Amino acid sequence: MTTLRTPGPTIGVVGGGQLGRMLAEAAAPLGVEVVVLDPTPDCPAAPFARDQIVAGFDDEAGIRELAARADVLTFEIELADQDVMERVSEDTGTPVHPDPSTLETIHDKLVQKRELEAAGVPVPPFREVEDAADVRAAIDDYGAPVMCKARTGGYDGRGNVPVESKADAADALESVAGPAMVESFVDFEREVSVIAVKGEDDVATFPIGENVHEDEILRETVVPARSSDAVTERAHAVARDVLEVMDGRGVYGIELFETREGEILLNEIAPRPHNSGHWTIEGTQTSQFEQHARAVLGWPLGSTELRSPTVMANLLADVDAEQSAQLGDIDEILETPGAALHWYGKRQARPLRKMGHVTLSAAEESESVDELLERARELEDAVTFRP
Amino acid sequence: MTTLRTPGPTIGVVGGGQLGRMLAEAAAPLGVEVVVLDPTPDCPAAPFARDQIVAGFDDEAGIRELAARADVLTFEIELADQDVMERVSEDTGTPVHPDPSTLETIHDKLVQKRELEAAGVPVPPFREVEDAADVRAAIDDYGAPVMCKARTGGYDGRGNVPVESKADAADALESVAGPAMVESFVDFEREVSVIAVKGEDDVATFPIGENVHEDEILRETVVPARSSDAVTERAHAVARDVLEVMDGRGVYGIELFETREGEILLNEIAPRPHNSGHWTIEGTQTSQFEQHARAVLGWPLGSTELRSPTVMANLLADVDAEQSAQLGDIDEILETPGAALHWYGKRQARPLRKMGHVTLSAAEESESVDELLERARELEDAVTFRP
Repeated sequence: MTTLRTPGPTIGVVGGGQLGRMLAEAAAPLGVEVVVLDPTPDCPAAPFARDQIVAGFDDEAGIRELAARADVLTFEIELADQDVMERVSEDTGTPVHPDPSTLETIHDKLVQKRELEAAGVPVPPFREVEDAADVRAAIDDYGAPVMCKARTGGYDGRGNVPVESKADAADALESVAGPAMVESFVDFEREVSVIAVKGEDDVATFPIGENVHEDEILRETVVPARSSDAVTERAHAVARDVLEVMDGRGVYGIELFETREGEILLNEIAPRPHNSGHWTIEGTQTSQFEQHARAVLGWPLGSTELRSPTVMANLLADVDAEQSAQLGDIDEILETPGAALHWYGKRQARPLRKMGHVTLSAAEESESVDELLERARELEDAVTFRP
Repeated sequence: MTTLRTPGPTIGVVGGGQLGRMLAEAAAPLGVEVVVLDPTPDCPAAPFARDQIVAGFDDEAGIRELAARADVLTFEIELADQDVMERVSEDTGTPVHPDPSTLETIHDKLVQKRELEAAGVPVPPFREVEDAADVRAAIDDYGAPVMCKARTGGYDGRGNVPVESKADAADALESVAGPAMVESFVDFEREVSVIAVKGEDDVATFPIGENVHEDEILRETVVPARSSDAVTERAHAVARDVLEVMDGRGVYGIELFETREGEILLNEIAPRPHNSGHWTIEGTQTSQFEQHARAVLGWPLGSTELRSPTVMANLLADVDAEQSAQLGDIDEILETPGAALHWYGKRQARPLRKMGHVTLSAAEESESVDELLERARELEDAVTFRP
């Protein structure tokens, strides 16, 4: 039996970026308070969180202070230091969700793929590589091109290098700079993702989103994905298998490839609310952020039913150099029925930095997701970060 | 052309109760910050507002500090002192919306009714009363019973006394204690309300809600109201006429009587987001709180289209005496698809105090509002504030 009191339960979040901010927004109506820890003073989550502790993501004293303030700890960035969180949790008795060991698994893409493969999750062929000869051997086995990936630290395409031929093997390894792996290149029909959540006694998956990337950065997520029913069902099944491997409660962003043959292969996992799940704020009854709050608190999960077809478009800074953040001409977004603006409160705009997003829900049952995507892109194009 | 920056525009709110809290929740995604002024330390809005200034609603120094922090001032309680706000606004150049003169009009129910009647808004017959003889004369003219009302300070039924016969005239006046008026008793079919908003260049009205009161406290709002199309249209027209009289931008809660003859008469106006509009958070694209933020900032208003039939049920403390706030067994609310819980973060529960609300949206197109209301009441009954 869940009981609410005042002050409500407090979630301590390592990281105070837009994910922490949207978590605080989702938690507020439930009477759940959020305290964030982030090294950047006045981080995006700060204005709406109960408090910000200004400290590094691996600052043990800071994380101890966070644990003392919180009923449960969680994290919104993979940079969170799992050893420190584990130690603080053991000492203070404040639980951490998901389990920090999950972070450890996910940190290292090679370890992640090995564990998932062992659990029967379909993954593209992959192997560890130590030198250029290993990369060339992988090309012999998988055929060119292959993807050379940094085992740790890559995101938004950073640390992922396509290798077109054996001659490029050494350069690719050098640009990855550190422990690396090679994956067979997946000639995919589309990239989809499933936001999945593991509660105390229940699991839930959200409707499948189709992700449109450009320069390896997510531009739009289209829901429902334009996949067949069979592929959609398969993606849900794979997501549930992934949850079996993951330890501890919370939301996971599970990125998948849909191959041209209609096969589903795991791409990557984020052990936290995910950019490709932002559409859930308007598109479902319970957003990924509310689900994360419920899951880490051990509350029952909510409904993930789709309210109406929805497109999320990232608002990436269209600037050539770093400058003060300002988004001009938002009137069209504000005036469009079904459009919702989300601003992350970052002080500085940098080229292609994620500054916010706009969600567009279908005005009529009959509107196709193609039409919806087109309208969302028009809204995206109507605004600019240029002064 | 509206431009967003970081930090975003700041709304300074006199009052930090649940209305200020939900305003802060609605403003956050838009990058709009809220600072509240409230005499109660750690008031309901405090955890999610950027800051709270602890000061009385008429504390000029506090309101000056609020004005210095804000781009625009507004209020969420009628207790806000209009003279102080007007003076501070003139001195500091920080505008106040709605105009404090609106507060003045609304403060005094007699003045309110006179202005509205003069503008052609239909009101029940009313008159000023100074002594028991005046009340008896009103009974002669209107017929018994009549309503004897405090001209100022009444809310949630306080200050409203039904007078059944001439013999009760003196007692009624005494219990009103202060300047009074008498209104003809309206034998209504139902009470409805229209949440209406006046923007810089545009106005909008929300779908009509039907209000269920018990002991003169709002229990549930049912949307759409079970009124005929003609009555619904008339209610919208009256609401728009009311907006013509009101000065300045913002949301108004307009309470109306639907008589047994299908006539619409004005009951009362609140110059702020209103309890009977809480359903808009889930029930429409743009909630009354987001509309208020947009209106006072001079931004374009958003769509008010109904997403699906919706019932809001207040969670009133079912306690016999003041005690610490705790709401037990919220699992059924959390687990019901279409149900959303809102907790106001009040520290103390008192008999019938508004502690939160639950909104229930129809699961299927075919569900009637009667069925929906029944299910909402079941959710309301499943929880308790008793230890």
